[in-house]
Amino acid sequence: MAGTDRSRVSPGGGPRIILLRPQMAENIGATARAMLNCGLDDLTLVNPRDPWPDARAWPMASGANGVLERAVVRGSLRDAVADLSRVYAMTARPRELRARVLSPRAAAAEMRAAQWSGARIGVVFGPERSGLANDDLVHADTIVTAPLNPGFASLNLAQAVFLIGYEWYLAGAERPDPPVCDPPVSKVELAAFLDRLEAAVAAGGFFKTEELRPTMARNLRVLFQRAGLTGQDVRTLHGVVSALLTAQGRE
Amino acid sequence: MAGTDRSRVSPGGGPRIILLRPQMAENIGATARAMLNCGLDDLTLVNPRDPWPDARAWPMASGANGVLERAVVRGSLRDAVADLSRVYAMTARPRELRARVLSPRAAAAEMRAAQWSGARIGVVFGPERSGLANDDLVHADTIVTAPLNPGFASLNLAQAVFLIGYEWYLAGAERPDPPVCDPPVSKVELAAFLDRLEAAVAAGGFFKTEELRPTMARNLRVLFQRAGLTGQDVRTLHGVVSALLTAQGRE
Repeated sequence: MAGTDRSRVSPGGGPRIILLRPQMAENIGATARAMLNCGLDDLTLVNPRDPWPDARAWPMASGANGVLERAVVRGSLRDAVADLSRVYAMTARPRELRARVLSPRAAAAEMRAAQWSGARIGVVFGPERSGLANDDLVHADTIVTAPLNPGFASLNLAQAVFLIGYEWYLAGAERPDPPVCDPPVSKVELAAFLDRLEAAVAAGGFFKTEELRPTMARNLRVLFQRAGLTGQDVRTLHGVVSALLTAQGRE
Repeated sequence: MAGTDRSRVSPGGGPRIILLRPQMAENIGATARAMLNCGLDDLTLVNPRDPWPDARAWPMASGANGVLERAVVRGSLRDAVADLSRVYAMTARPRELRARVLSPRAAAAEMRAAQWSGARIGVVFGPERSGLANDDLVHADTIVTAPLNPGFASLNLAQAVFLIGYEWYLAGAERPDPPVCDPPVSKVELAAFLDRLEAAVAAGGFFKTEELRPTMARNLRVLFQRAGLTGQDVRTLHGVVSALLTAQGRE
């Protein structure tokens, strides 16, 4: 079967599809088929429930074997997004998180524009049964929610991937002028800055109590996640933190 | 389970989904789920391979039980479309038939317009393995083809139904839900924060020289200007600055 060759549709081009703790190998196979229908071939599995590779995935892939063969397994979502500069998370449920929310269509248009300016992009999908948890969402810049039947909103995993892939594929029909902009910061650089910031503000009493800290820290991270920062921005912000720490209450 | 009640989303409203000679009961179940995700509940099966009802469909429906319970079985496509005034057929393959071909999006817009003028509409989907035959297509006014990866165009049955349902659902949305987000910060509040920040980092030696200050200050302001901050974000950032000034170089 020529699966491997014909799978090479958009090498390095389309967004990475990241399945977090997927439970059913059949759904991983169906996801690979949906991806290849839409010209996507970069699949990452984070802590799949069963050992990978899993033979039950292949029949559901209907020939999208190359996508499965090249799938990468990671031990944490943080690792899976480390080399990306923009991360979307697909979830049906509205969250208490102060996050940016887009429809799949709006997100797809934005993804194309970001890719044309050099960004590497990923979309995260949660486990079949539970979806994404708030702690998973801190790795995402933007939440994507399908504006479908609010009374029955839970999509099959491969359907959700297909929805993103379909809109991404269609959004590629026209290419606008690239914006003049520095390349976006990588997730690993952003995480290092946020770790430093969180430790520094903790030392300054920003988190009133230890109980409040997880929520306040998450909101602080989300604020910077969705700010669309470039690598230069984050270097500037490091300088800001250093300067404030040096200023020593002289305000 | 309240499946029966919550399934009644668009009684008589959405297009009828007609599966011609479906082979796998699991796909019928997945179709029901996809339909209800998109507010559709009128399902007809024409000559299913296995006797209907088939218990294997229910787990894949994930609660869209009402759609399955009300599914109608017909002995011919002609019977299945008899009371309709407009019939679409979804197929991935270009045909020798002289037929009108639309994308799912264009077809959905047309369906909505036709329904608003009183038409009863159906969409036909072929068997999993072979798709629709030319003899089946004579019952259709219009062919619908998804403009996806031409090298790997065969969609899973429930995916194909989902694609039509999704576009149909969106075509009827007069107005999308507003994004879940706090209101953006006012310019005067943002300017006050930026003035405070600039003064504080200046005290900490952020601006190496007075010559560099105008450019560096402008870049710092632009960074926060384009971050899309809300009023709550700016209150959070005031807290961050206060905490860093309190931390007094304890990093």
